[in-house]
Amino acid sequence: MDKTKSTDLVFRTRYVETDQMGVIHHSNYLIWFEMGRTEYSTRFGLPYTRIEEEGFLFLVVESQVRYRKPAFYDDELVVRTWCSELKPVTFKFQYEIIRKSSGELIADGFTKHVNVSKETRKPARMPAHIMEVMS
Amino acid sequence: MDKTKSTDLVFRTRYVETDQMGVIHHSNYLIWFEMGRTEYSTRFGLPYTRIEEEGFLFLVVESQVRYRKPAFYDDELVVRTWCSELKPVTFKFQYEIIRKSSGELIADGFTKHVNVSKETRKPARMPAHIMEVMS
Amino acid sequence: MDKTKSTDLVFRTRYVETDQMGVIHHSNYLIWFEMGRTEYSTRFGLPYTRIEEEGFLFLVVESQVRYRKPAFYDDELVVRTWCSELKPVTFKFQYEIIRKSSGELIADGFTKHVNVSKETRKPARMPAHIMEVMS
Amino acid sequence: MDKTKSTDLVFRTRYVETDQMGVIHHSNYLIWFEMGRTEYSTRFGLPYTRIEEEGFLFLVVESQVRYRKPAFYDDELVVRTWCSELKPVTFKFQYEIIRKSSGELIADGFTKHVNVSKETRKPARMPAHIMEVMS
Repeated sequence: MDKTKSTDLVFRTRYVETDQMGVIHHSNYLIWFEMGRTEYSTRFGLPYTRIEEEGFLFLVVESQVRYRKPAFYDDELVVRTWCSELKPVTFKFQYEIIRKSSGELIADGFTKHVNVSKETRKPARMPAHIMEVMS
Repeated sequence: MDKTKSTDLVFRTRYVETDQMGVIHHSNYLIWFEMGRTEYSTRFGLPYTRIEEEGFLFLVVESQVRYRKPAFYDDELVVRTWCSELKPVTFKFQYEIIRKSSGELIADGFTKHVNVSKETRKPARMPAHIMEVMS
Repeated sequence: MDKTKSTDLVFRTRYVETDQMGVIHHSNYLIWFEMGRTEYSTRFGLPYTRIEEEGFLFLVVESQVRYRKPAFYDDELVVRTWCSELKPVTFKFQYEIIRKSSGELIADGFTKHVNVSKETRKPARMPAHIMEVMS
Repeated sequence: MDKTKSTDLVFRTRYVETDQMGVIHHSNYLIWFEMGRTEYSTRFGLPYTRIEEEGFLFLVVESQVRYRKPAFYDDELVVRTWCSELKPVTFKFQYEIIRKSSGELIADGFTKHVNVSKETRKPARMPAHIMEVMS
């Protein structure tokens, strides 16, 4: 439930992610956060693919990003991910994007989620084994 | 089955579609072609949404794009779309991307498709009323 | 400086914007917000292209989105955009994404910006004629 | 100038890359090809970033993709890249997308490029040390 249980995923930025300002376009950070969530659930025992197979979807209900330093094409970055709030139906992930070479903080933010049933698309309590992966 | 039955969809390029060369990134043209297909099937009576509701998917099996002139942010472009080959299971769309103000050809290309059953994901013959929309 | 000076841009969602949940992926909303900004500055007399030509860039320093209802492929949506804070160097845009047919609120959010010099990439005061477009 | 000088880059597909068919959207393959080019030029001694710093841009003038098998979210894929034609101004890259676990061919294709001067945007001969990286 705090940053001591977190995952670090290293990745390279892509040319397509740049824009004509010469920096990475700000919409990509939400995609990197999502990659962070995939890494987190996989590392702690339950790839998100399996969560969907069990009949659940993690909808995004809110996102926030603070952009602190620009990122550039071919940068090696880290997305650090941890779960900062966890209830049976809703939860929150926090993220930091860090330049690997310098440790510099590029951006941070969060996403809030609601667990829904894949079939009814209505909010649903997470089973205990999924709660455990997250916590 | 030729360019005389075609649709023109006008759209504006987006900032996110630019890259650090200062032009629109080449991967977006396939997305514009797809917008052209949506327009085509809608205009001729069967929105693609309805085709999926009837249990079919139009998979892309091949794509080709020739990039002739650069496109820029906030350009007003036209995607011209027509069906150039039609068999009961497979078909081909052709496209031109045109700068609206000048009529200049920006790019052209094609996509080849196979109609599959949404359930089995196996090739399937299109019903007559879908064939008619395409032809 | 409030919602009474706003712009509405109508657009259709794209197939590529969907994900395997069957809804529009949440990262696209930031792109729609950006389209809203383009519309806003163009409508009030200064296309963003001209702002860059005059030597400025509007960096995004923070973004927030609240996702209220899912959006689907081929939905006709509206992005409503207005400027809610304006200082000589920093400003804030707010947005609503609305389903055109029903008037239903799909999402809302904001972006915060800093005006920088294209050359130095340092914060810079906006000239009066740009301030006027925004206010 | 043939497949014996090639690079393999391993990557994971992203959730955002899926569409409502439940597979990876076909436009992403061009982005993976581009990642393959970055890997190729970096591995053989000249990151593409340096090529741009030296005053050149590699424009894409044609692309072709053949989609052979669907790819899915969280698949571990390989993009294999090699240069199949090389002249002082124009060149061609070929690609294979391979499922890492099975060796299965997912897609293949090519991109054709022209080297242009970053300043004039006109075709330009590549210097010998860049030709060497490619060949």
